[in-house]
Amino acid sequence: MTQVTVGHQANGHSNKLEKKAATTDKVASPGDEQLVLNTIRCLAADLCQQYKGGHPGTVMGAAAIGIALWRYEMRYNPANPEWFNRDRFILSAGHACLFQYIFLHLSGYEAWSLDQVKKYHSPATKGSMAAGHPEIEYPGIEVTTGPLGQGISNAVGMAIASKQLAATYNKDDLKPIDNKIWCFTGDGCLQEGVGQESISLAGHLGLDNLILVYDNNSVTVDGRIDNCFTEDTSAKLVAQGWHVIDVYDGSNDLAAILEGFDKAKQLKAKPVFLNIRTVIGYSSRKANTGPAHGQALGDEEVAYVKTQLGFRPEEKFVIPQRVYEYFSECRTKGGEAEADWNVLFKQYQEKYPGDYKELSQRIKGEWASEGWDALLPSKADLPQAAQPTRKSSGIVVQALVPKFNSFVAGSADLLESTFVSFKDQVEFQKPDSGLGDYTGRQIRFGIREFAMVGLGNGIAAYQKGMFIPIMSTFFMFWIYAAPAARMAALQGLRFIGIATHDSIGIGEDGPTHQPIALASFYRALPNINLIRPADAEECMGMWQLALDDKSKDTPSIFALSRQPVPLLDGSDRSKVQLGAYVVHGRDVEEPELTIIATGAEVARAIETAKLLQTIKRVRVVSMPSQRHFDQQSPEYRESVLKQTSSLVVAIEAWASYGWARYAHASLSMHTFGHSAPQQQLYEYFGFEPDNMATKIDSWAASWKSKGRLPGLGEFEELLLGYVRH
Amino acid sequence: MTQVTVGHQANGHSNKLEKKAATTDKVASPGDEQLVLNTIRCLAADLCQQYKGGHPGTVMGAAAIGIALWRYEMRYNPANPEWFNRDRFILSAGHACLFQYIFLHLSGYEAWSLDQVKKYHSPATKGSMAAGHPEIEYPGIEVTTGPLGQGISNAVGMAIASKQLAATYNKDDLKPIDNKIWCFTGDGCLQEGVGQESISLAGHLGLDNLILVYDNNSVTVDGRIDNCFTEDTSAKLVAQGWHVIDVYDGSNDLAAILEGFDKAKQLKAKPVFLNIRTVIGYSSRKANTGPAHGQALGDEEVAYVKTQLGFRPEEKFVIPQRVYEYFSECRTKGGEAEADWNVLFKQYQEKYPGDYKELSQRIKGEWASEGWDALLPSKADLPQAAQPTRKSSGIVVQALVPKFNSFVAGSADLLESTFVSFKDQVEFQKPDSGLGDYTGRQIRFGIREFAMVGLGNGIAAYQKGMFIPIMSTFFMFWIYAAPAARMAALQGLRFIGIATHDSIGIGEDGPTHQPIALASFYRALPNINLIRPADAEECMGMWQLALDDKSKDTPSIFALSRQPVPLLDGSDRSKVQLGAYVVHGRDVEEPELTIIATGAEVARAIETAKLLQTIKRVRVVSMPSQRHFDQQSPEYRESVLKQTSSLVVAIEAWASYGWARYAHASLSMHTFGHSAPQQQLYEYFGFEPDNMATKIDSWAASWKSKGRLPGLGEFEELLLGYVRH
Repeated sequence: MTQVTVGHQANGHSNKLEKKAATTDKVASPGDEQLVLNTIRCLAADLCQQYKGGHPGTVMGAAAIGIALWRYEMRYNPANPEWFNRDRFILSAGHACLFQYIFLHLSGYEAWSLDQVKKYHSPATKGSMAAGHPEIEYPGIEVTTGPLGQGISNAVGMAIASKQLAATYNKDDLKPIDNKIWCFTGDGCLQEGVGQESISLAGHLGLDNLILVYDNNSVTVDGRIDNCFTEDTSAKLVAQGWHVIDVYDGSNDLAAILEGFDKAKQLKAKPVFLNIRTVIGYSSRKANTGPAHGQALGDEEVAYVKTQLGFRPEEKFVIPQRVYEYFSECRTKGGEAEADWNVLFKQYQEKYPGDYKELSQRIKGEWASEGWDALLPSKADLPQAAQPTRKSSGIVVQALVPKFNSFVAGSADLLESTFVSFKDQVEFQKPDSGLGDYTGRQIRFGIREFAMVGLGNGIAAYQKGMFIPIMSTFFMFWIYAAPAARMAALQGLRFIGIATHDSIGIGEDGPTHQPIALASFYRALPNINLIRPADAEECMGMWQLALDDKSKDTPSIFALSRQPVPLLDGSDRSKVQLGAYVVHGRDVEEPELTIIATGAEVARAIETAKLLQTIKRVRVVSMPSQRHFDQQSPEYRESVLKQTSSLVVAIEAWASYGWARYAHASLSMHTFGHSAPQQQLYEYFGFEPDNMATKIDSWAASWKSKGRLPGLGEFEELLLGYVRH
Repeated sequence: MTQVTVGHQANGHSNKLEKKAATTDKVASPGDEQLVLNTIRCLAADLCQQYKGGHPGTVMGAAAIGIALWRYEMRYNPANPEWFNRDRFILSAGHACLFQYIFLHLSGYEAWSLDQVKKYHSPATKGSMAAGHPEIEYPGIEVTTGPLGQGISNAVGMAIASKQLAATYNKDDLKPIDNKIWCFTGDGCLQEGVGQESISLAGHLGLDNLILVYDNNSVTVDGRIDNCFTEDTSAKLVAQGWHVIDVYDGSNDLAAILEGFDKAKQLKAKPVFLNIRTVIGYSSRKANTGPAHGQALGDEEVAYVKTQLGFRPEEKFVIPQRVYEYFSECRTKGGEAEADWNVLFKQYQEKYPGDYKELSQRIKGEWASEGWDALLPSKADLPQAAQPTRKSSGIVVQALVPKFNSFVAGSADLLESTFVSFKDQVEFQKPDSGLGDYTGRQIRFGIREFAMVGLGNGIAAYQKGMFIPIMSTFFMFWIYAAPAARMAALQGLRFIGIATHDSIGIGEDGPTHQPIALASFYRALPNINLIRPADAEECMGMWQLALDDKSKDTPSIFALSRQPVPLLDGSDRSKVQLGAYVVHGRDVEEPELTIIATGAEVARAIETAKLLQTIKRVRVVSMPSQRHFDQQSPEYRESVLKQTSSLVVAIEAWASYGWARYAHASLSMHTFGHSAPQQQLYEYFGFEPDNMATKIDSWAASWKSKGRLPGLGEFEELLLGYVRH
């Protein structure tokens, strides 16, 4: 157990700066530091007051932590925010973005001028980068945060990325990767389950390049956290395999913070948690209250704060020149650090040209040279017998992942069921665990689906395009991970999500494990590919689509069957990117009926088509991706669905929601599932071809007799009789 | 810190039964107990082998824990599984359902005959109650579990329910509520974030009626958990405010388990965590491996196990009479316990008739007498000025919650923003906290959205209908809670979900906080009411719908605006239950155009209607609930939308997904949002009435000139020009 105390328990709000300053040679002039602290506090108060909104309290309470980070501890180059070997800073407490914006300005990021910072809470739609939560698009922001807890998972992912790269490319004499990951968290992120999951896994993995800085102000929107959170966080983190450093007066005791950070950088074998007590809204009379968390202080209080801190109430946004001078070293130090690294990397290039080539390619975001898709078996070389699409997807994992270092794969405890293991895989594990080492590209995420995808986002964001994380669990449990998958779509981070056992086809596990509505969320979500392939051939096309450059800013989720599906005569990998295509009955010129189906239901749809009595001119369309189909021209869409002249019916063992855009009727799930073998569930819920043919026949006959196609409001669900008893 | 060790670290698999039996007078005959253990192990092996699937390992490893629970520790009456004051047992490790089924059988639940238990993995669709995960519909099952971690949250909710009832109704001399909540968890639930959140809150609340039994076999699907989980769980739980009892040989040392449970029942002021080490698949050669977790053992191995344990390999499903005799006391004890309680409750009735009346009404699931909705203000008495629907919803919270003890309210740290606080509220807190007491009906869930709803499900399932939990956070964070909301819908548990700040209307917080696609999930999900009211009047109808008896098996989520909306002339609370109705232009007999809108967009739609140039005969429909509209007759639906004769367009600041069923076109969000004041976002994304009128005019004119209505495949999204830059 490592638990270190730095500084002393605070007695009130005594200012310890001068006293402590003498104990470290790092601190410049105590007078300067006090001015800097006061400047930042007044600036935060002004910035929130101008639009009467925002989060001033954290900036005011944690200003000394910010000084320690940006002025002293972190390695970065403000002149080149993208420098590869920079430390990464993740603000998990995203609502405190002003904290980050102010230090980005003071440390010299050109884009973060004072004018820009003053745009806090003014419209992003009119050019403000100072959004209400930090956004990845802007310089110095590593990842978009806001939904609490996820920043911690992103940071753990970044720490994995850095460790994995270091283990892969560093040499005894030359180490191009040796940065640290700093994550700033408030109380909220530590309450959220995803934060807990990530902390647990980081401890297990022993990620000593990760430093989690806890701004322990113990106040949230609703007031003191002791109304809902009274655990001993430091002791808990020790139990979870972390080094813990306690700092007791984080609003003032800069020397103690620096001492803590210095220790944190030296500690080995475990990640480090700094529990730094601060006073939210420090120097305001609203200090230590909920309103200091998420409201502007009010004009009167802002004036009070300024008066207390030696500033003039009538002057706004004041940053004395001495404060800029205090931070001027950031640019110098940063420039030197990058220059040194450039020299090192040049030496690396000369001595290790092969590794250099691969690494520098990956830094540019290129994961493979052209022609990678030739590594996938042709249709003729695919297994010709029926097999689950989860297994067919595994063919691609086997073909590509061992060859390309950009892939990391992993599972939330369903490695074999989801077919993401690969030949000669090494597990990403602590070298002394006996289970693997940090070169490993197979990550055991544990039963932590949300953290898995949050970590994946961190890995993907580490250096965009450098990694393509592959993550897997049953489709149903992509609902646990949905908040993180959404953040990937929002940020344009590519991952591959393997979502197996994707329907009632999971069988005996029953309704708790059978997704009905989840696809509707992913289909409605912007910028994510939800792909449900019909067979092994479409699995090839699905991977091609996801790995294509066109998807480089888009995550993909593959919904895959547990149960075997036949290799279809008409399936065609090249058509998957079109979203839908005619898979059966292409030669039917003027179809009377088009059946759309997806995934495991496509084979059933083809069987159904063959059994129809009323209507003989039938086509079956496989629609692996609604989103890609929507992106096609109206002409292509009409050529596939023939919806202006033929009846169209959709077959899918999920909810009907969303199908009215493509079909006049659907055969869908209208309720939750059941526990039974999959074959019996398909039968029970009405998806047997003979039953479906009967339903469609009767429906089609009635419309035939009406002599017109159904219109708006006439969408029918043909299996409505099948409901849970 | 309380951490107690019971028994000794196991040396191999030595059988400690005989040795320990002498130390407690509770244990009957050691010989019997060994026979019982062996019988259960062989039975589990047989039951999985018959259909070659299932989870035998936990039953075999934890059989002694089951004996301790059902034979000795838990208070319940097999003859009346619904007896109110029974202990509640929650199997959080739902995949180990066979464990529960076997003990339900042995302890004498009539419905759980051996024939019924033998239906494990046979179709629920053909009468099996022995589903792949336990389902609430069946006797002795308190809650449906399976998605890992949620059972723990359900158990914490039940412990809250029991504590709250006890504090409300128990008297010094008569205590009708004094049961315990037992939760059985495996490794997985403890890794899941929702488990962690729930554990943290239970520790904070000091729920000493909760006993969490950790079947610590350290093996999951993917093998040994030390490949991903190496924390010191006992130390962690101590840090989280739990009593911890360690038992080291839980597969054999029944006496130690009993000693632990006895201690657990006596310990006060904190919940109790029993960390019981077991050997998964005990007595098989596959013990301690992943395959023992989730696969049948195979014929050969089943034979081996039986031979080892003194059973005949060729005989299946053998339960010796002595085993039944061993458990016969369960029925006797249970019957006596209930009889005693009936006497007590009779005394309670005589002495405390008022409390008795309310309590017994609530036990029957009746939360209020008729006429409660008269407590809601009439439209004339509602605030006539514009106000946010979140605030209007709060009017109902104020009107009803203080009056009816069935309501518990709470928030994930957004109490005031979501308007779920109420007059004279008492917080549900430890009595010695100084913050409230256990009679409290305001629960501070902390920043733990998923646990909040999991707890709510436990509260709702405690005694169905006895509580109606009200839970709140921003709509966006109902994505964190979605896995639990889904479980409520699956189980038919009523809760009220307050989901405020429901769109880009949240403003400056930006895209991370602006839901786009989430509504599609909730609209597609069976058995949940997603209601988005247009104004204060519809807020009244929304609450009426959710609290009506028709919704007693259905959870509701209210999507509410942060920003003010006017009270609409045409709004009508009585129409909310119809899902949609004409809110403007009712007198327009033959509309050329119908505009559907929801929530805050309805007022904008009415403004838009007034600005149209091309088309003058326009109606506006408010559609607070798609689901309820779908349930109306075709005639009603046609009368509202006039879709066979008029153009229909939908306006909603969410994704267009799903609207093609109701409209020919939509004005929707096509991308994630932005950080800006809400008014500017509505403008930026094209939702200003003048812009919408222009778009609709031009679209309508083009169809007017075509002389027909759009057909399938011609659905248009009229704001597609507005995309994120």
